[in-house]
Amino acid sequence: MGGTGSGSTEPGDTRSGSTSPGDTAGPRVLSGTGVSPGTGYGPVYVVVGGIPEPDRRGRHDGDAAAERARAKDALERVAADLEARGARAGGEAEEVLFAQAMMARDPGLADEVSRLIGQGVSAARAVFEAFGGYRELLVAAGGYLGERAADLDDIRDRTVAVLTGLPMPGVPDHADEPFVLVARDLAPADTALLSKDVVAAFVTEQGGPTSHTAILARSMGVPAVVGCAGATTLPPGTPVLVDGGSGEVRPSPSAEEVGRARAAEEARRAVLSAATGPGATADGHPVPLLANIGGPRDLEAALAYGAEGVGLYRTEFLFLDRDTAPTAEEQEAAYRPVFEAFPGGRVVVRTLDAGADKPLAFLPPSEEEPNPALGERGVRMFRRHPGIMATQLAALAAAAEGTTAEVEVMAPMVATAAEAEWFAAACREAGLRRPGIMIEVPSAALRAADLAGAVEFFSIGTNDLTQYALAADRQVSAVAGLQNPWHPAVLDLVVLAASAAASASPQGKGCGVCGEAAADPALACVLVGLGVTSLSMGAPALPWVRAALGRHTLEQCAAAARAARSAVSAAGARDAARAELPGLAALAL
Amino acid sequence: MGGTGSGSTEPGDTRSGSTSPGDTAGPRVLSGTGVSPGTGYGPVYVVVGGIPEPDRRGRHDGDAAAERARAKDALERVAADLEARGARAGGEAEEVLFAQAMMARDPGLADEVSRLIGQGVSAARAVFEAFGGYRELLVAAGGYLGERAADLDDIRDRTVAVLTGLPMPGVPDHADEPFVLVARDLAPADTALLSKDVVAAFVTEQGGPTSHTAILARSMGVPAVVGCAGATTLPPGTPVLVDGGSGEVRPSPSAEEVGRARAAEEARRAVLSAATGPGATADGHPVPLLANIGGPRDLEAALAYGAEGVGLYRTEFLFLDRDTAPTAEEQEAAYRPVFEAFPGGRVVVRTLDAGADKPLAFLPPSEEEPNPALGERGVRMFRRHPGIMATQLAALAAAAEGTTAEVEVMAPMVATAAEAEWFAAACREAGLRRPGIMIEVPSAALRAADLAGAVEFFSIGTNDLTQYALAADRQVSAVAGLQNPWHPAVLDLVVLAASAAASASPQGKGCGVCGEAAADPALACVLVGLGVTSLSMGAPALPWVRAALGRHTLEQCAAAARAARSAVSAAGARDAARAELPGLAALAL
Repeated sequence: MGGTGSGSTEPGDTRSGSTSPGDTAGPRVLSGTGVSPGTGYGPVYVVVGGIPEPDRRGRHDGDAAAERARAKDALERVAADLEARGARAGGEAEEVLFAQAMMARDPGLADEVSRLIGQGVSAARAVFEAFGGYRELLVAAGGYLGERAADLDDIRDRTVAVLTGLPMPGVPDHADEPFVLVARDLAPADTALLSKDVVAAFVTEQGGPTSHTAILARSMGVPAVVGCAGATTLPPGTPVLVDGGSGEVRPSPSAEEVGRARAAEEARRAVLSAATGPGATADGHPVPLLANIGGPRDLEAALAYGAEGVGLYRTEFLFLDRDTAPTAEEQEAAYRPVFEAFPGGRVVVRTLDAGADKPLAFLPPSEEEPNPALGERGVRMFRRHPGIMATQLAALAAAAEGTTAEVEVMAPMVATAAEAEWFAAACREAGLRRPGIMIEVPSAALRAADLAGAVEFFSIGTNDLTQYALAADRQVSAVAGLQNPWHPAVLDLVVLAASAAASASPQGKGCGVCGEAAADPALACVLVGLGVTSLSMGAPALPWVRAALGRHTLEQCAAAARAARSAVSAAGARDAARAELPGLAALAL
Repeated sequence: MGGTGSGSTEPGDTRSGSTSPGDTAGPRVLSGTGVSPGTGYGPVYVVVGGIPEPDRRGRHDGDAAAERARAKDALERVAADLEARGARAGGEAEEVLFAQAMMARDPGLADEVSRLIGQGVSAARAVFEAFGGYRELLVAAGGYLGERAADLDDIRDRTVAVLTGLPMPGVPDHADEPFVLVARDLAPADTALLSKDVVAAFVTEQGGPTSHTAILARSMGVPAVVGCAGATTLPPGTPVLVDGGSGEVRPSPSAEEVGRARAAEEARRAVLSAATGPGATADGHPVPLLANIGGPRDLEAALAYGAEGVGLYRTEFLFLDRDTAPTAEEQEAAYRPVFEAFPGGRVVVRTLDAGADKPLAFLPPSEEEPNPALGERGVRMFRRHPGIMATQLAALAAAAEGTTAEVEVMAPMVATAAEAEWFAAACREAGLRRPGIMIEVPSAALRAADLAGAVEFFSIGTNDLTQYALAADRQVSAVAGLQNPWHPAVLDLVVLAASAAASASPQGKGCGVCGEAAADPALACVLVGLGVTSLSMGAPALPWVRAALGRHTLEQCAAAARAARSAVSAAGARDAARAELPGLAALAL
């Protein structure tokens, strides 16, 4: 689980987890924040967050041999299940799960369980205590071994679940019919094996629009509701109807309600498929819709969803898991197919965003960083390793040669005008004519007018910008309530950046958004209303954003932006903006 | 050492480390950023950052017995020195240093050194290799033991230094005459034993105005220059004249130059001692000057330097190093003497600022935080533990009863209007009539107008505000060049907060500054010009700020503020502001 804390919503924020007072007839309707649009219907599957400790005084009925056999069977069943899951997952997950299976079959552990059962202890309690001894050893060893304690706890919980007839913890990776996955929160490890065939919708009690669940759900194209208080109390198996737009979660809906939702879903699909061509508002104001990609492997989806180009090409994949930096030739080979995929189109490449939070073997951090997100990341790392930057820029220039793509190159984590000037000069020297910068540090947004002269465009990274503006870590669920790009302070920073870009040259310079905010159809309209000139997102969100934009005029977007900035909270901004965007209804958003 | 990285200054920032071209006669004059005013004169002592590895092929001359005796003597000398330093330091440092002395006397280590010397290896190389074997064991063990590797490296370096005739690494804790301490950067551990009697001035190559060195120097009242390129190349023992105002470092000054500097210093002392009474600009605009304190023990200095009250009473000391939260009675006993020390004066108490970066035994973090500075800190922790807050507020209300101090209570890390409202309501419920909030999260400054209605005052924490606005960790020297409160983006945020407070009621609400910025006399004038209504700082800075303010009109301060905000970099802002503040010259600032 991503977190165990409570209180992730803001005080005074009464939207989360409220019940609809009108629904007195059926079971209680829950509501949260819709973060991935669409309607999902299926039985509830509650992800168990932990197995209760077996009774300290638990004794077996006297037949130690039978109890030993039960314990042995349970451990073997868990080991076999882990192996099977590993084989299906493949890759790194396979290694992790195979190692866990070996732990479950450890003979020393079996001996200790057997010894305790010999003293009359119940199998469940014996397993619990035997694992406890191992756990202490691992924790005392610290470091890598210490971190394995969580793996051990997982095996222990699974075995105790088998012995006590509780559901196995964790997320199932196959199902007869797609289920609605309900959890307090989901961590990446919980979701390695999930697919659209298995999950009809996600509902979590914690998390916000940029939580792991929200990002995963949007990338899978599965409806999701987060911040939905009380969700884990839904009885497993209950059929529920989940609206990833409005955030409504309706248990045991009537056949009519399901039918109506399915009809609405079909109507919406029709609206979606009718929205084609380049992105634009209803009155024809063009807003190029671009895709975020992490490598050439993502090109297929980008093209399938009608991306007009690439707004964020993350280049880290070239640098990870290797002992030396990639050569200019290796890099060129990875850049060229992306440029060739969009003849005449824009491709915005972000240079390497490494640092202590994404460490590379050949670029060790210069010192220990207590807060890697505030450390020597992005362009700051280039300052210390200009050779790495020079090679990347040269490779980009070489790859662009002979293609017709409009190649733009931008640096992450720029905070000052001096950094922007330094990076832009290096790009131009390498023959890259359109240097730009990410706007993700508050100072860069606040002083965007000082930075705009040096570069050709801005691209706002709303995820990090929100993280720094609210001082709330994207990875910590206890502060997820603050990590919301709808917060008016974030919108203020977007306006500063967009207006500085617009005023920086007679025809105006571009200011795009490439964070998660661009993938939220309502927020996408607001961003356009704030002056943002292009939107880049995970490809599955493109049709939604295209349709939402196409159903509103630029003035409607501007009115929604004004309404959002007049609010004093993220939830208030979202409500106020949606009230100005009537076209979202046809998309059931 | 605090860091080993290079490139901590901004690109294009040509101020740091430049030489004065006019000084062709004497040795090269160095310059950096003056961060603690005053003139210091003494011989250079360069803190050695590491001892070179002894030659891999180093052999002794064949007399193994004599070489063994040398090695044994060196280890014993290092052990005895560590013990002596520990005994002088006392407290926690004593324990650490005694433990290091024991490591130096480890018999297993001596055996390995002896064995290697038997193979003909030189004593220095033998010591180096023997420690290396131990080091690997510690690192492999990880956790607490792994962290001891640095202690082991320190003993190794000291012993190798003795054997090879190099100066012992680290900082001396006594001297015949005060020296000018020169280093790449200083870490807290380097400076545990320093006093004004030993250090005439600090000069570091790295670091900015909020670096550890700058803060330490100001709290000791010792002149300091940071960001001074080339400083560690000054030959040890060279007499240097350090100007902690202008940032000039002059090696081998003439007797006349020293005499002139001393005369200027005396004239400045006269100006300082002439500036008495409540803080105000030259034209009588009052600016209350308050002290930052960490407990009743700091009251004496606050009163001695003429503080008009307390602008930041940090209450963490009550909560550290204990297994349970302090009771209301214990807290009341710590608050009352501070309130009684300022009859009729202001005392601003900051409620507990705990979190993963300042963990308390009885308030464990709810989850692992990869970036504690962006985690569940300050008021966020209160959200999860409202009982801790209630007890603290009740204790403050009880302690205030019967005293005449104007007690104000503020919460740290407030990011949203909802948090401000929630905290203010809790204060009022506890009978505390003047609740306030720290402005240290960018969103709180950006949206100050939304927060001002809920509270009676703001207090800007420039250290954290700068850290978040520039996304640059205060503790990481590689990004120290960005950690500068002079950056115009930070000044913009100050203006937003100060003007929101001024407009929040007919007579205006107060907006103070309690970060390190308030202790910089030039920046203090700028802050007043930006609309800040009171300044709180470490007590030794009060006379300097009082004198600087008293020599400028409010309009001069406003002109300096406008000039600073027109700049595009921190260095540019500082230079532009100082040009508008002619009165600093009399203080040699």
